[in-house]
Amino acid sequence: MNSFGKLFRTSIFGESHGESVGVVIDGCPAGVPLNQSDFTADFARRKSGSKGTTPRQEPDKPRVMSGVFNGHTTGAPVMILFENTDTRSRDYRHLVDVPRPGHADFTSRQKFGGFQDYRGGGHFSGRLTLGLVAAGVIAKKLIDPMHVNAAVLEVGGSADIEAAIDRAVASGDSIGGIIECRVNNVPVALGEPFFDSVESVLSHMIFSIPAIKGVEFGSGFRAASMTGSEHNDNFIATDGTTGTNHAGGINGGITNGNEMVFRVAVKPTSSIHLPQHTINMKSGDMESLAIEGRHDTCIALRVPVVVEAATAIVMADFMLRAQQAGRIFEN
Amino acid sequence: MNSFGKLFRTSIFGESHGESVGVVIDGCPAGVPLNQSDFTADFARRKSGSKGTTPRQEPDKPRVMSGVFNGHTTGAPVMILFENTDTRSRDYRHLVDVPRPGHADFTSRQKFGGFQDYRGGGHFSGRLTLGLVAAGVIAKKLIDPMHVNAAVLEVGGSADIEAAIDRAVASGDSIGGIIECRVNNVPVALGEPFFDSVESVLSHMIFSIPAIKGVEFGSGFRAASMTGSEHNDNFIATDGTTGTNHAGGINGGITNGNEMVFRVAVKPTSSIHLPQHTINMKSGDMESLAIEGRHDTCIALRVPVVVEAATAIVMADFMLRAQQAGRIFEN
Amino acid sequence: MNSFGKLFRTSIFGESHGESVGVVIDGCPAGVPLNQSDFTADFARRKSGSKGTTPRQEPDKPRVMSGVFNGHTTGAPVMILFENTDTRSRDYRHLVDVPRPGHADFTSRQKFGGFQDYRGGGHFSGRLTLGLVAAGVIAKKLIDPMHVNAAVLEVGGSADIEAAIDRAVASGDSIGGIIECRVNNVPVALGEPFFDSVESVLSHMIFSIPAIKGVEFGSGFRAASMTGSEHNDNFIATDGTTGTNHAGGINGGITNGNEMVFRVAVKPTSSIHLPQHTINMKSGDMESLAIEGRHDTCIALRVPVVVEAATAIVMADFMLRAQQAGRIFEN
Amino acid sequence: MNSFGKLFRTSIFGESHGESVGVVIDGCPAGVPLNQSDFTADFARRKSGSKGTTPRQEPDKPRVMSGVFNGHTTGAPVMILFENTDTRSRDYRHLVDVPRPGHADFTSRQKFGGFQDYRGGGHFSGRLTLGLVAAGVIAKKLIDPMHVNAAVLEVGGSADIEAAIDRAVASGDSIGGIIECRVNNVPVALGEPFFDSVESVLSHMIFSIPAIKGVEFGSGFRAASMTGSEHNDNFIATDGTTGTNHAGGINGGITNGNEMVFRVAVKPTSSIHLPQHTINMKSGDMESLAIEGRHDTCIALRVPVVVEAATAIVMADFMLRAQQAGRIFEN
Repeated sequence: MNSFGKLFRTSIFGESHGESVGVVIDGCPAGVPLNQSDFTADFARRKSGSKGTTPRQEPDKPRVMSGVFNGHTTGAPVMILFENTDTRSRDYRHLVDVPRPGHADFTSRQKFGGFQDYRGGGHFSGRLTLGLVAAGVIAKKLIDPMHVNAAVLEVGGSADIEAAIDRAVASGDSIGGIIECRVNNVPVALGEPFFDSVESVLSHMIFSIPAIKGVEFGSGFRAASMTGSEHNDNFIATDGTTGTNHAGGINGGITNGNEMVFRVAVKPTSSIHLPQHTINMKSGDMESLAIEGRHDTCIALRVPVVVEAATAIVMADFMLRAQQAGRIFEN
Repeated sequence: MNSFGKLFRTSIFGESHGESVGVVIDGCPAGVPLNQSDFTADFARRKSGSKGTTPRQEPDKPRVMSGVFNGHTTGAPVMILFENTDTRSRDYRHLVDVPRPGHADFTSRQKFGGFQDYRGGGHFSGRLTLGLVAAGVIAKKLIDPMHVNAAVLEVGGSADIEAAIDRAVASGDSIGGIIECRVNNVPVALGEPFFDSVESVLSHMIFSIPAIKGVEFGSGFRAASMTGSEHNDNFIATDGTTGTNHAGGINGGITNGNEMVFRVAVKPTSSIHLPQHTINMKSGDMESLAIEGRHDTCIALRVPVVVEAATAIVMADFMLRAQQAGRIFEN
Repeated sequence: MNSFGKLFRTSIFGESHGESVGVVIDGCPAGVPLNQSDFTADFARRKSGSKGTTPRQEPDKPRVMSGVFNGHTTGAPVMILFENTDTRSRDYRHLVDVPRPGHADFTSRQKFGGFQDYRGGGHFSGRLTLGLVAAGVIAKKLIDPMHVNAAVLEVGGSADIEAAIDRAVASGDSIGGIIECRVNNVPVALGEPFFDSVESVLSHMIFSIPAIKGVEFGSGFRAASMTGSEHNDNFIATDGTTGTNHAGGINGGITNGNEMVFRVAVKPTSSIHLPQHTINMKSGDMESLAIEGRHDTCIALRVPVVVEAATAIVMADFMLRAQQAGRIFEN
Repeated sequence: MNSFGKLFRTSIFGESHGESVGVVIDGCPAGVPLNQSDFTADFARRKSGSKGTTPRQEPDKPRVMSGVFNGHTTGAPVMILFENTDTRSRDYRHLVDVPRPGHADFTSRQKFGGFQDYRGGGHFSGRLTLGLVAAGVIAKKLIDPMHVNAAVLEVGGSADIEAAIDRAVASGDSIGGIIECRVNNVPVALGEPFFDSVESVLSHMIFSIPAIKGVEFGSGFRAASMTGSEHNDNFIATDGTTGTNHAGGINGGITNGNEMVFRVAVKPTSSIHLPQHTINMKSGDMESLAIEGRHDTCIALRVPVVVEAATAIVMADFMLRAQQAGRIFEN
């Protein structure tokens, strides 16, 4: 469904061209300070505008509709709403029967029997990540002094990001990219045995972000070609510090107190100006489709802040889950 | 926690050297035929014995303790038990304070305050995957005619598996590997929006398997260096068939009816004969540790059947979830 | 938390005097027709205005903010919002430290460490049931031809409701009441074994409604003084029809196809004009408290439509859960 | 399904005449001391033997199969198994098509399409409460110094329990009863807003126990005929102590620190010696059915220890959930 988390529970709703998108955070502890200005920095990072992103500008003003009182969370669900201002009736109807390659047009049509809101990707739009980023703002406060930082590592296979973007813009094509995320000041022993390992829960969340096609922790796929003596991280201090960090800060699914490191693969934006082949679902005829309008040349550029939010949400949940176990030992 | 799934719910329990390991499957529909012999093939594949796997042999006989009557599942929880026969008091006590690199010894000690069963990895042992394979046997019947097939793609960075194993055995070191899994006859429209995308739920499950450090779908990390015109899969038939399959059979988190394809990175076995450095948690002294006994040189060899089971369990759950939506359209 | 249901999942949010109250319904199947006018009848029933209810009038206009397109549910989450128009700064601050007897003032203060929104009961206000009634409107459509009907059986211990209300209004005191709810056209075999019996899940939901202090099914508490030969309902037809219905339509936690019947006890409204004793949490002094303003003399009068909504929501979830099991037998 | 709880998660499995019944407790904190003898007292109370209970005697020896090491819980799932020793092939086959009134025979047959284990009630047998009592033994340790005590208040409508039992035994009929449960030393502020009120979660659990048909808190159904000035409990101390306890220790769904009090109605045992009418599901003919063998005349006599276990399990879960919120205020 559209909810995630066990104790810090994030639920998203909305459509790209419907009335609104938004998020409900249930289980946020009371007493977290929260003001409108707290959202500014992360929303600016998610926004388009720089080269390689769509020039379309939206206000994206979050309205906190419940769960905050006198500048602090109350313990009741926090609902944050983004009303869609730009919902004038652009005509997407011709796309209903002509699914865009790489998009969810075909699968959502089949899943929801034709009742889906198909305008601009509807519920499958990247616009839904607004709610995620908003929840991330709160989660980042909650997990402090843990700190999450994600950045673009490469785009289009090149670490010279600007040059790669320039080439792609010129070609009318789109390119993918790789994001690396690091979490510092991670407490030892977050994560749960077996099905709720840190890798399990974090990858679950990360793969929810549209366009993600791979997740790897520490040495990741490179570990497959390493030997045990290379890959094993020797412990060098009783607090769990290791000499190397091939494990990405996680042993047996549980944080070992070293920096958490993981990378995600972002596929190239599905919407491209170049003509593509697809099929008309009603007539059965092949059609050539050139997607007009403005798109991100490289959606990966806007993903880091979403990955950060997703990670902070997961760590907040793990942190709350860990506290319950801790108490017993103290007694 | 130790449970997974929404409608087809798999819970595992047990320790490597405790009384038992096992699994409870709640939500398995009534009427699935199940006999003792159904487990034979997959358990043989998981078993050790071939070159590169530990020569230790265990019976691993599954006892169905509930939920099956007259050769069929009843609709009540199916509990499958593996009593540990080989629980004589090997002395693991000297390892309590000397965590093995790459293992969960350190993290489980911190998480459970010293109360964890540390013998042979305890609850974090690969032996827990017995329950997963057992549940997979049932799930595979349930999802028929969907068919899951996983195989080793490469080990130690080489596709010549036998040669790579020989080299590793000779060196006393261990090596990792890459597994590829394919699912055929997948119905269109499995998966749920946003947080329960197929990639999300499947990676959640797959990362539960010990030693997995990366998961990628379709072109995966390679997609990051592709262009949109290369990566997008053009639709060529109204049933959703695409000309290429860079997406790995999933659009917007939902199956598009093409073959599902994903790969997982398995790290090298953490237990190696070569001496390693670690730290004594009590004294704070560095210690040299050579892990005796018999281990898998390449645990990746035993992982494919576990990946298959994990995948079948996930697809069974998605299948049951999808049925509820379908009914509405019919009316 | 503030969510309920396994497949048809209802989440509520909001505060009595905050920005809004509302509901998110996740898992509602696509294709359910829904228009603004569908809400009218049930909202009118929930509204105050008749004798024994508060004369305060609010518009309570539901705004469907997501999940509905072209007059039908889309399969994405349905968010329904009620913006609070009447949020001018009434002064509740003097009540922060003086908990009203029978209300959640004391417990919410302790639970949320003083950060709770205390205005008008905040998140614990009966106003939150607006979201429940809205979700119930959709659930009722989904479960058709099942039909839920709840009515007041007695108030203040008397079946002459009007006379009892008149007496209570005159005295400045409040009175409780008993609601009976009946569900017709119930399919056989809804409900799940053990922890998710119909009685379990339904009582869970019903006790969420503020002011409910008892729930009984069929003969209920009277069954405790009956004999087995009196209480057992003899089967008289192969469709499960029984001669009597002491079980209230449920055997072993699962519907038997007969009418479902249960009763709920509603306590008297906690807010009364008569002076009460309470304690000042800061000073520790006893205080006399007379609650001013307009209250419901008998909140039970407004509860039936909420009980109906709650019941429909539960039955919708059971119905969707049942469909997944059914499919297997067909194959 | 067959699982209950959010952090302290209890899952039951098994059948009356299958291989076993048992329980898995996931989320039990590490470090809880547990020995075989801890189970003795509560299992003796659940056992039959006294007048009004079946003279059949079973060993009911719990085997702890996982999650306990060196006399303490480890933090991994605790599985407790009861192998059924008395599974010789009594012939229940003639009952398959002739559902016993008051039992789950008819509903389980319809729900599971004839695949259900029908022997002795199968998965719907009261024997499943063995697992609940076992989990309760652990939960009671966890919630200490909270203390749960349940006792029979009346049977067959009479508080003279022995006389009522004698009369019922003589008549060959069965009788019901009322159990009252009290919880002392309850911390303030357990319970969660709206759907997870203490009344909601506790009634959910209590109605899982076979034969329960009503639950009421504090004054319960009597509250419906009280006035607000009678029912409201005045606060008399800043720790939340109230002069009366009509609320049963709960305001707004959250514990107020006063004694928790609730009552449950137990229906008369469905199995009786007197002949009853039922219908043959295959032939459609009415049949007269006299249930042979030994049954409990008054199952209510064996219910108190089950109610205690159920209550302790619920309070353990609430306690663990509450700890996570508490930590935030401290910082």
